[in-house]
This record gives sequence, structure tokens and C-alpha cells, in this order.
Amino acid sequence: MSFEAAVHAQAIELDRLALEMTAAAGAGHPSSSMGIGHIVTVLMFHTMRWSPDYPDYPTADRLVLSEGHAVPAVYAACAKLGVMYGKDPNNRRRLTIDDLKNLRSMNSELDGHPNPMEGFPFFDAATGSLGQGLSIAAGLAQAARLDGFDKRIYCIIGDGESREGQIAEALDYIIDHKLNKVLPIFNCNEFGQTDRVSSQQSAERMEAKLEAYGFDVKVIDGHNPTQIKNAFDAFEKATKPMAVVAKTVKGWGAESMQGAGWHGKPATGDALKKALAELDQKRMELTSSLAQSDSFTIEPPPEISTPDLAVGDMPGMPEAMKSFDMESLMHSGVVATRRAYGIALRALGRVNKKVVVLDADVSNSTFSEMFKKDSGSADRFFECKIAEQNMVGVGAGLSAAGKIPFISTFSKFFTRAYDQIEMAIYSGANLKLVGSHSGITLASDGPSQMSLPDVAWFRSLGTMKDHRGNPGCYVLQPSDAYSAYALVGVMAEYEGACYMRTLRADTEFLYSDKDVFNLGGFQTLAEGKDLVIAACGYMVHEANKAIELLDKAGISATLLDMYSLPFDSDGVLDLINQANGNIITLEDNYGGGLGSAIADALTESGDAFRLKQMHVTRIPKSAKTPDEMLKMCGLTAQDVVKEAKKLLGVD
Amino acid sequence: MSFEAAVHAQAIELDRLALEMTAAAGAGHPSSSMGIGHIVTVLMFHTMRWSPDYPDYPTADRLVLSEGHAVPAVYAACAKLGVMYGKDPNNRRRLTIDDLKNLRSMNSELDGHPNPMEGFPFFDAATGSLGQGLSIAAGLAQAARLDGFDKRIYCIIGDGESREGQIAEALDYIIDHKLNKVLPIFNCNEFGQTDRVSSQQSAERMEAKLEAYGFDVKVIDGHNPTQIKNAFDAFEKATKPMAVVAKTVKGWGAESMQGAGWHGKPATGDALKKALAELDQKRMELTSSLAQSDSFTIEPPPEISTPDLAVGDMPGMPEAMKSFDMESLMHSGVVATRRAYGIALRALGRVNKKVVVLDADVSNSTFSEMFKKDSGSADRFFECKIAEQNMVGVGAGLSAAGKIPFISTFSKFFTRAYDQIEMAIYSGANLKLVGSHSGITLASDGPSQMSLPDVAWFRSLGTMKDHRGNPGCYVLQPSDAYSAYALVGVMAEYEGACYMRTLRADTEFLYSDKDVFNLGGFQTLAEGKDLVIAACGYMVHEANKAIELLDKAGISATLLDMYSLPFDSDGVLDLINQANGNIITLEDNYGGGLGSAIADALTESGDAFRLKQMHVTRIPKSAKTPDEMLKMCGLTAQDVVKEAKKLLGVD
Repeated sequence: MSFEAAVHAQAIELDRLALEMTAAAGAGHPSSSMGIGHIVTVLMFHTMRWSPDYPDYPTADRLVLSEGHAVPAVYAACAKLGVMYGKDPNNRRRLTIDDLKNLRSMNSELDGHPNPMEGFPFFDAATGSLGQGLSIAAGLAQAARLDGFDKRIYCIIGDGESREGQIAEALDYIIDHKLNKVLPIFNCNEFGQTDRVSSQQSAERMEAKLEAYGFDVKVIDGHNPTQIKNAFDAFEKATKPMAVVAKTVKGWGAESMQGAGWHGKPATGDALKKALAELDQKRMELTSSLAQSDSFTIEPPPEISTPDLAVGDMPGMPEAMKSFDMESLMHSGVVATRRAYGIALRALGRVNKKVVVLDADVSNSTFSEMFKKDSGSADRFFECKIAEQNMVGVGAGLSAAGKIPFISTFSKFFTRAYDQIEMAIYSGANLKLVGSHSGITLASDGPSQMSLPDVAWFRSLGTMKDHRGNPGCYVLQPSDAYSAYALVGVMAEYEGACYMRTLRADTEFLYSDKDVFNLGGFQTLAEGKDLVIAACGYMVHEANKAIELLDKAGISATLLDMYSLPFDSDGVLDLINQANGNIITLEDNYGGGLGSAIADALTESGDAFRLKQMHVTRIPKSAKTPDEMLKMCGLTAQDVVKEAKKLLGVD
Repeated sequence: MSFEAAVHAQAIELDRLALEMTAAAGAGHPSSSMGIGHIVTVLMFHTMRWSPDYPDYPTADRLVLSEGHAVPAVYAACAKLGVMYGKDPNNRRRLTIDDLKNLRSMNSELDGHPNPMEGFPFFDAATGSLGQGLSIAAGLAQAARLDGFDKRIYCIIGDGESREGQIAEALDYIIDHKLNKVLPIFNCNEFGQTDRVSSQQSAERMEAKLEAYGFDVKVIDGHNPTQIKNAFDAFEKATKPMAVVAKTVKGWGAESMQGAGWHGKPATGDALKKALAELDQKRMELTSSLAQSDSFTIEPPPEISTPDLAVGDMPGMPEAMKSFDMESLMHSGVVATRRAYGIALRALGRVNKKVVVLDADVSNSTFSEMFKKDSGSADRFFECKIAEQNMVGVGAGLSAAGKIPFISTFSKFFTRAYDQIEMAIYSGANLKLVGSHSGITLASDGPSQMSLPDVAWFRSLGTMKDHRGNPGCYVLQPSDAYSAYALVGVMAEYEGACYMRTLRADTEFLYSDKDVFNLGGFQTLAEGKDLVIAACGYMVHEANKAIELLDKAGISATLLDMYSLPFDSDGVLDLINQANGNIITLEDNYGGGLGSAIADALTESGDAFRLKQMHVTRIPKSAKTPDEMLKMCGLTAQDVVKEAKKLLGVD
């Protein structure tokens, strides 16, 4: 057969469909799609080993479309191949050409940008916020290596989006981990949204950069079927990481839609007719040698019976610490929650092989190094170096392949990966984010290392329901080692996103391994009749001191350890009502966190109450100790007592 | 004189002081500081044109210490030079050797990481969250070029932190804008926190990468005074961007503190004695040729009388639109707030030359292109391409040099720059962040382009006071073109951080240019007695429809346009009380935003009320129109009516 002609014919068909579906949608990016028609054709009809009947089969090669707005090209290919889709895995149907006209409509799985959770399992992750796909591809490859699958991951990246620093982070990561089963394909069509892309992202510059990063680079004409095929063949044989720089034409096949001014614009009316006519002309030119018999064969993925890894029970923390020769620390009764996280990770790693751990060069601060140093789990620890955006993306990829990624760094340093975290949540990723050095009590390093608006942001995600009907994210703030240890186990058993804040400072035990901790739960540490003090994390200890001082002053207060957001509001409201509706909230971050969550619950209830929120209300600076810091921020036990008396109108 | 010996002597002195001040602080990073002792010495005692009497003089060369944890080296140099410091610009004092022992204490300006706002004007920005310095340096250079200052910006970047993608973004930006007055100095000491840095950040790899990016690269021994000096001399003559890769030794001069295990650890007791002794030994070896007469001379910056740019008044929007030939659009009465932002920017640019604008390849969506295309302001528009972290950092640098940066992209795409935004706020940057396509009403592109937890995050920053005593950030959500236009002027006059959300969808005029908008203000669009509906942005229009429907149902409601967070809560509470304490909040994002802000205000007041928060409570997907989207999310006028009736207990 004439491979060339067959690819051209198919690519032109995809281009036509991209034009038509975006016209029907009245939105979308046809010209971007037309720029990758040939590459998508060779990948999906020829190179990839996969099955349209089971697009998410574990051993199937994967395509990550980082430039998600070009998705019509992939939807078109899936329609031509009758790929199975649908939200319910047990009740999928074949995508038809007719379905394409529903692109971007409210009831269609064909979302504006790729999104597996909306019912399109061909994809592993939601993309569209640019620069994120290559990290996800790297995570998929890392998982395949762990599973022993000979699986290739292809990632199409726009030239404009390769300006995003996360791409550089992902490239370094791929070289560090020798992930030669990931193929970054840079789609250099020379045009961004407003104008030409920078010469820093030209094909020539990309080639030079990729070589400097350590890749074998193949520069190809992205519309030449043989050059595309040869590059992919070379990749199959590659023993070191390889990258493709594809020179493409945005709006290929329809000159009337090329150059600037056509980004994200569907062609309609005469413009559509003209573009389609230009494509017809191209077909005549390029597919004359096409024989009736010409067709593609797609190699299916190797069949496997995925071993359902048996999951054992975690021992209690004392038992775990004993087995790790940490008895003396255990008996000290003072263990930082970040250290408890490390202990729990190590214990968890031994009973659950699905658990993988990522860290960003701070594993000796977050204590994830305990997992890294255990011979039973060392191969499931992935050092990401100081590149948090890529780390979260790799985690999302690992999750898409069925792993349970625990990702740790300082809480503050997750901030620059919030977009990646949000996209991962939209992808349905089973993320366990664990940030250490949370809040203000790390003291002397100062605000550049402190997480302060973080609780508000993650809590906001918890005010909506994810695709599984659970809170978009749980925020967990353990106050002692026992609760931190227990919550690691709870997170591992739960499918969905969690963010746990651990502390730099050592804290005394408040619990034992008899105590139970749940997502949405809280603990009552003292019961009083005059007032409730609701605190979390480090502040539970400060509140404890306040309770004693209040007791001496004849005020009896209830102390709640609000280790989870969201929480069981009925339970909390009952206790507040029993204390005449008087409540003080105490947290080590800016507002919008625990205090606002309580305010939301109270105002929804309609009960009568008096609430005083205590949180950080200034930009902190360095101080030598947590106590100095709490003083600076007006959050000491004495400050709580003062506010309590004010609230109760005594003295 | 023996330059070599003099530099060694001074560097060793800085190293000693770094050891001593971190020992006194009981925290800090002496080994990192010792790795840059020679570079800091040559820069601050020899190469830079600046004055210790006036470290922030406008024309002075600047040093940006991206690896902020190495700051003891700079504090030591400033103490040796008696640099002026202190929070009050009119009441500064000279830093003394004795002051150094207060490093990191509560009442010292010597914070754990660089921070000008705590009283150390030698620095332009707070650093310490890694990977951000080079973008700030680029912004400083861009400002100097605008001001016509022959000013050089030196930026020291750690090898570990150069893994952060933002560094790659900054490098591309420097080449794009030919900023040959910025010198990136990569400090390659080969050690990160937990281990060696990746070979991807080795001196050899950095050299190759930097050349591929387009830099002239000088690789030097970072402890060889002549090599350092020669590199800086070459930079002074450079006509294209240059970079230095300095091979250094972490813990130089004290072998006992070199290699892994010494990151962020002060030496105390015997370890300190040993390290100091090793430094003494070095001094004997390296400074024998030092003559008494040897000393450095620092060239002062050129004196200038900074022209205080006269600021004119912005015309009203109709007048501006008339002058821009947009009368027909004006008369249509329907103008998207994002377009009003563009109109206002263009008008503002003509009357205020301090205003600069940055965008990330979406200026035709955000409408910042109106500023770019006006010949009067084109030279103050900086295209950052698709790299939001660098864009925010460049903005912080421009602000540090006295410019007023308006920075725009989609609200969603600011998310990945939240760490940079937070650090810029700690730096006191005068940021005006304007995000377009906010909330859910952009509809068809789907959630990858929607900003949903953004209000909660920025609101959290608004719950604390910045160094000027103002809210850390104002969140502005104009509902129509007039308010958007007016708020651009308000932001320009205000010194501090603001985040304005504009909308993709066109919206009808609700105001005229007689209406006044203030930070902290709100507008009353209807007055009723049964209920208050508090909405913002697009939702004000939906609320308007609800008001009519309610009126037909015999329910009279007050409508508040809550365009500012934080807001004047007394004013809002009065109106709620006048409506029997019944209130519904309506917003197009996840929870933790306007609704929680009102809940916080109500619960603080102790007044009785009934509050229903309406916000996005699911992960949205694509829909074709804003109306479809609002329906999907249960936020239509009809939904509001339903909730209002429920709240009032009618039918």
C-alpha cells in the first residue's frame, strides 16, 4: 500500500472533521488541530499499540495531548476508529462521526479540552492549562516501568506552551530517570495565540535546547508521513531519551486559515466552505496513489492479568516505631507530625505496594526519606529535585496508572503548583499532598517558607464535589504524631485528593493508637459549658494551654481538634450549642480557613452564637522560636484567654 | 595592590561572619553563604556601582540574591561596609558587625531571607522561595532601560534552584528582550539540601543549556578573584546577554563543613571552632601578599534628579471610547469588562507614564492589546509569552523600580504563579493583577480555563495587613464596563496589590461615569425590605433578573454589587439588618469567596440573620453558553428565587 497516501487521506479526513465539529460547536481550535492531523494519524492508526475497544487498557501505549485545545484532531480519529467512551466503564459505547457535532455541549463527553473524568478514557488526564502534559507522560512511564509493562507514552506539546517552565522541569526529570519510553513531540507551527511564537521556541532553538538537555533529537516535517513514521520507529529502538521536533503548519491544508489571526476560531459559512475546498484540493494532490485496499492495522496491547496487589494492614505507630528502632523517640512522647508522616509512609510502603512517594529535594525535612531508605520501598521513591510543578504532574501520571502517590515538600512550595494540583483533581487523580513546615511555627526562616493562604485555597476546593461525589479535596491538619500517622493510613484507603499539613516543630502526644481519625472527623479534647475553642495543628497545643488558664479563671471550655476540613458540622454545632453558642477558632494561617469554615457552618445552621476568629493577620517575619512567632501574631494562649473573656463579657 | 589577596581576605572575613551570625541565630545556611563569599566580595566591594549610604539609589547597580538562604554572606558584606538600613527611609542607620548577631530575631531587620520591607533596602524583593530572582532581575533591567539608566543587575542563582522551571522562563525572557544588563550568575556548588544536585544542573550541563538558550557563557572558578573579575569585566562590555557559571565549593574554606549533610546547619561549639580555624589557615595561605595599603574603592552610581513623572486624570469611559473611535460599541450599551479593562489601560497609559503592562500571549483576549497598540504606550508593553511565573516576577522587578505594573492573563493561568504573587506581596510590590475569563461563564472551553478557587485564595491574602497596613490584596470583581474602567484608575492610584477579575462574556451597562467605585466599596442597585442578594461580577446580572422575578412573587429584595473584597462591612450589615437579616450570596466560583466573607462579617457582628450561600459546588464541564453553564451549576435567577423563597419560608 502507499503509506504516504493513506496517511494523507486519513489526516485530511481528520482535518475536515475538526473543521466541521468546531463549526457545529461554534468554538474550538480547528487550525491547531489541523497542524497535528498527520502526527495523530500515524500515532493512532499505525504506531501506537492499543485497542479502540479498550482505550485505557493497562498495557496500551498512551497519547498525552499537552496542548489540549487541539483535541478535535483526536476526537476525530477516535470517531473514525469507533473508540469506546462513556462515563460508566461498564456501559461504554462507540464514538461515531455523528457524535462529533456535540463537541463542547453540556451533555457531551467531548469536552472543550481533554478530560477522562467526563467520560473519555482515551485520555489519562485533563489538559488545557498549558505546559503540564509532559510531566503526566513521565509519570505514566514511571508507573509502566514499576509494573514491568513495555508501554510507550507519546506526548504532543505546542511550541507556544513549551515556554512554560514546567516543560523544562519535565525534560530534566525524564533525563534524570532515563525514561526512554516517553516521547516528547514538539509541535512547532510557529504561531501562538496573539502572534508568532518567540524565536526561543523555534524548531531550531528547540532542537539546540533539547540536545543541551541530553535528548537525541529528530527534527521532522510534521506533515511528511514517512518522516513521522521513521522518527517513531527510531524511538521504538531508542535506548536513551529521544525527542521529536516537528515542523508543522497551523491550519495545514487550508491556506485561508493559516498564519496569525486564526487561533481558536472556528471557520463558518463561506470561510468553512473555502477551507473544506482547499482540503479537497490537497486530497487530490496527495492521495492519487491511494489504492482501495489501503488500510491501517493497529497492533493491540499485550494482554495481561493485572495482579491486584494485596494490601495489608498498617501496624500501630508504637509497633512501627519499635520495628524501626525508634523506641527511645517513642518514649519521649514528643514527635513532630512531619516525622510521624515519615514513619507512617515507611510502614505503609511495606503493606501497600501501590504507594509511591515523590519529593522535591527536601525529603530529610518532610521525612519522606524514611520511605526512600527502606529497601522494601526505595524503588518506589522518586526524587523530583526542586521542581514542584513537574512533581505534581508526575504524581498525576502515576495516579492515572493506578498508583497512590504521596507527594511531599514544604507546604509553601506547593503553592507554585496549584494550577497543576487543580488540574490533577479535575483529572480524578488520587493525590496525597503532604506539606511540611506549615503555618508560622517554623519561625526563624521567615515568610518565604511559610504556608499562610494555603488552607483557604484547599478549603475552597473542598466546597465542591469531585466527579466521585466527594469533596474536591480534604485538608488534614494533625496536631500530634498519632493523628498524623493514622491519617496517612486513612488517605491511602481513600480515593481522591487530600492535602495534609505537617509541622516543623516537635509536638507532644495528644492521642494513642486507640483513637480513630476519619476524613470529616474531629476530636473533642476537653468538654466545657461556657465556650468552645476550635483549633487545628500546632494551635491545638496552644489552645490546650488556654483551656488550663481559662479553668483557673473559672471559665470552662470545650476544646475541639478540627483536624479535617470539611468536617461533620452537625457534631460541631451540637457542641457549640452546648456551650451557649460561644466559640473561638484558632489557626496558624491567614483567614478563610478553619474560622471561615466554622462561620459557614454556623450561618447555614441559623443557630444563635458568638464567634471570634483568631488567625494570622499580618505578614510574619523571622523570629527565633514558635512562641516568639505566636506572640508576634497575637496567637498565644494568653491572647486566647483575653479574647475568651471579651467574648463572654467577663472582667 | 594584590587584588587576589584582598578579595580572599575579605571573602574569608565574610565567611567568618556568616559562621558566627548563624551560630548566634542557631539557624541559617553558613555553608551556602561561604560558597558565594568571593563572588559577593568582588561584586559589592569592587564591581557594582553603588553607595552603602544609599543602597537603593535609583541608578545604583543591584544584586538580586535568588538563593535567599545564602543571605548571611550579603549581610556580612553590608556590615563591613556600614550599609544604611532600617524600616523608615528617613531614619536609617549603619549596619554594624555587632548587629549581625541579631540575625533572624524578632526585632531585627536581618530576616532569615532577604526582605526589603522588613527594613533592608539593599534588596529589591523578598527571595527564599526558590527560582524567582532572575525574573525580578529582568524586571529591574527592563525598568532601567525605560528610565534610561545605565544600570547593571547581578543575580546569584543556586544550581539546585535552577531546576525550577521559572529560571528557564526568565532565560527565554532575557533573550527575547535582549536584556544584556542582567547577569545571571549560576552558583554551582554541586550540593542541594538532601544530596548532590542532579547532573542536569552540573556546571557542564548548565553551560550547554545556557548556550542553547542563546547566552554567551563564561565558566569560572567562583573562588578565583581574577576569574570572577574578568567575567564581570566582560559583562560590562557585553552587547548580547551573558551568563556566568561559577564552580564553587559549598562551605569553602572549611573542609569540615563541605559535602552533604551541612545544608542549612549552623556550626556550633567545636565544629564552629574547627571551621574558624580552617578559615584562619586559608587566610595564611592566600593573603600573605596582602599589603596594609590594600583596599577597595566602590564606584558610586551616577547622580540623577529622578523626574517625578506628572500624572494626569483619566477621561470618563465615554470620552475615552469616543477618542478611540469606539462610539458605536459605546452606544450598544453592552461591553465586556475585559474590553473595558483594555480601554481603561489605553487611557491610563496616556496620562500615567509609570504604568507598564505585561501579558502572556493572550493580550487579544484580556484586551491589554489596546495598550500595546497605542503608540503612546507601546514601549511600556512587555510580551511575556506563555510563562506566567516569570511574568509576575518581572512585574515585581518593575514595581521595585517604581513602575506600576498591570499584569494580565486568564484568571486561571495566574494560579501557577501564586507563589510568585505571594512573594511579590511580601516584597511590597505594587502589583495590579487582572485576570480575564473569570469564573464559569466562559462556558465552552471548560474547567481547564476557569478560575474557581481563586477568589478564596486572594481573599485570604486580604484578611491580613501588608507592611503598609492595608489588606494584603484587594479582590475586585466589576460587573459592568463602567465599574471595570473606574477600578483600573483606582488601582493605579493605590499603592499595593490588587487582583481584578474580568469576564469573557459581554455584559450590559449598570452604571455611568457619575458612579464612584472605591477599594472596599460596594453598590446598592436595588433596595427592598425582605431580603438582600449580594452578588459580584457576572452574577450581579443574574441577581438582577432574580430581583424582577421575586418582585412578581411579592418579595422585595435589595441588590448589592459586592465588587470589592474586603468591603465596608458596617454598610453591608446595616442593609442586611434592614432586610430582617435575610441574605443570599451569589458568586461564579467555588466557596470561600464572597459568601464566606459575608459569613465572616455577620458572625463577627453578632447580629441575627439567615444566610444562604450560592456558589459553584461541582466541577464544571463545557457548555455552550453562560446560561447553560449557570443552569448546570444551579446558579440561575430561577435558582436564586427558589432559595429566596426557601429562606423566607414562603410557599
